Amino acid sequence: MKTYQTTLTFNSPNRGTFNITPDINQVVEKSGLNVGLCHVFCQHTSASLIITENADPTVREDIEYWMQKHIVDGDANYRHNYEGDDDMSGHIRTLLTETSHTIPITNGRLNMGTWQGLFLYEHRTGRFNRQVVVTLQGD
Amino acid sequence: MKTYQTTLTFNSPNRGTFNITPDINQVVEKSGLNVGLCHVFCQHTSASLIITENADPTVREDIEYWMQKHIVDGDANYRHNYEGDDDMSGHIRTLLTETSHTIPITNGRLNMGTWQGLFLYEHRTGRFNRQVVVTLQGD
Amino acid sequence: MKTYQTTLTFNSPNRGTFNITPDINQVVEKSGLNVGLCHVFCQHTSASLIITENADPTVREDIEYWMQKHIVDGDANYRHNYEGDDDMSGHIRTLLTETSHTIPITNGRLNMGTWQGLFLYEHRTGRFNRQVVVTLQGD
Repeated sequence: MKTYQTTLTFNSPNRGTFNITPDINQVVEKSGLNVGLCHVFCQHTSASLIITENADPTVREDIEYWMQKHIVDGDANYRHNYEGDDDMSGHIRTLLTETSHTIPITNGRLNMGTWQGLFLYEHRTGRFNRQVVVTLQGD
Repeated sequence: MKTYQTTLTFNSPNRGTFNITPDINQVVEKSGLNVGLCHVFCQHTSASLIITENADPTVREDIEYWMQKHIVDGDANYRHNYEGDDDMSGHIRTLLTETSHTIPITNGRLNMGTWQGLFLYEHRTGRFNRQVVVTLQGD
Repeated sequence: MKTYQTTLTFNSPNRGTFNITPDINQVVEKSGLNVGLCHVFCQHTSASLIITENADPTVREDIEYWMQKHIVDGDANYRHNYEGDDDMSGHIRTLLTETSHTIPITNGRLNMGTWQGLFLYEHRTGRFNRQVVVTLQGD
C-alpha cells in the first residue's frame, strides 16, 4: 500500500462551478493505483468542492439560485464584510458544502456513479487561484 | 496495511432515512481489519448519507421537516424539474448533507459514539436501488 | 505505510467554536508521519467540526448568526425537544456541517491553507465533554 500526493491549481474566473473530475482522474492514472481512496482537499474558506449531477447544467444553476436565496450576499447583520458583499456569504456557502471529498478508486479510476461529477465551487465574485491537494492511498 | 473494498445495494422504498450501521459493521467484520478507517460512498446525486441520533426516531422526522421547509419541493424558480417536484430538491438535500462518510475502525468495529447511527437518506419520493461503495484501509 | 489512532477529549464550555488545529498538529507530530491523511471524527450528534477562516473571529460570529436564523432553536414544530430548545437545532446544525474532516499531511504537518483552521463547533448551550477520534494513515 502506498501514498501518492500532489497539488493542483485551478483558476476560477468567477463565482460558479467547474468540473474537475477529468483533472482528478488524470492524477489517479499517474499514481498507478488500482484500488483505494482519493482525497481531494480545497485549501480555501470561500471556495469548496461539491459532487452533483454532471449532465444537465441547470442543476448547478438551481443550486446557485438556492444559495443566493438562503445565504444572502451582503446581509446587513454580517460583521465580517472587509472584502465585499460576497465575503461572508462565501464562508457560509463553503461551510454548508464541502472542503474535501473522498472518492473510491476501483480498477484504476474514480468509482463515482454515472451521474456524479466533482466540481470546484467558487463562491467569490471575482478571479481567484485555488489550490487543491490530492492524496491517494491504496494498491 | 491493506485495502478492502465492496459494493452494497440498498432498496429504498420511499423518501426517508434507513439505518445501515449494521450492514457496514458486517463489512468491517468480514474485512478482518482491527484498526483503520471505513469509507462509505453513495453513488447517487439525490440520495445521501447522514450520521445522526440512532435512538429517538422523531429526530429524523424533525430533520425531514426542516428539509421540506428550507429546500422546497417544486419551487417555481427551479429550471431542472424533468423528474418531478422532488428532482431538484433531492439534489440540494444531497449537497447539504453528505455523499460519503469516513468512520474510524477500532477493535474491529466502527468506532462511533453511543448515540450515532449511519443512515442512507433517500430524497426522492419513490422506490430506488442505491449503490454504496465501502472501502476499508488499515491493519 | 502505517495507521496511528488516538482519542482526544475537549471540554466545550458553551455553544460556540473552539480552534483545535494545534491539538491535531500535536497528534500528527507524535505519530511521526511525514505524508498521508489525518481523519478527525467527532463522536456526537450535537457537536460538529468545521474548517473556516482562522483570523477574524467575526467570521465565526456571523456563522453563528446564520445558524440561529435558519435553524431555529425551539421551533414549535419540532417533536424531539426532551433536552430543551437547543436539542433538535443542535442535531440539524451537526447535519449541515461535518461530523468528520480529513486533512492532508505534508512534511509532517496538517497541509491546510493559510487562512484555514479546524474548529470544534459546540451546538448545545451548556458544558459538555466531547470526544474526537483522530486516525492518521501514511508514511
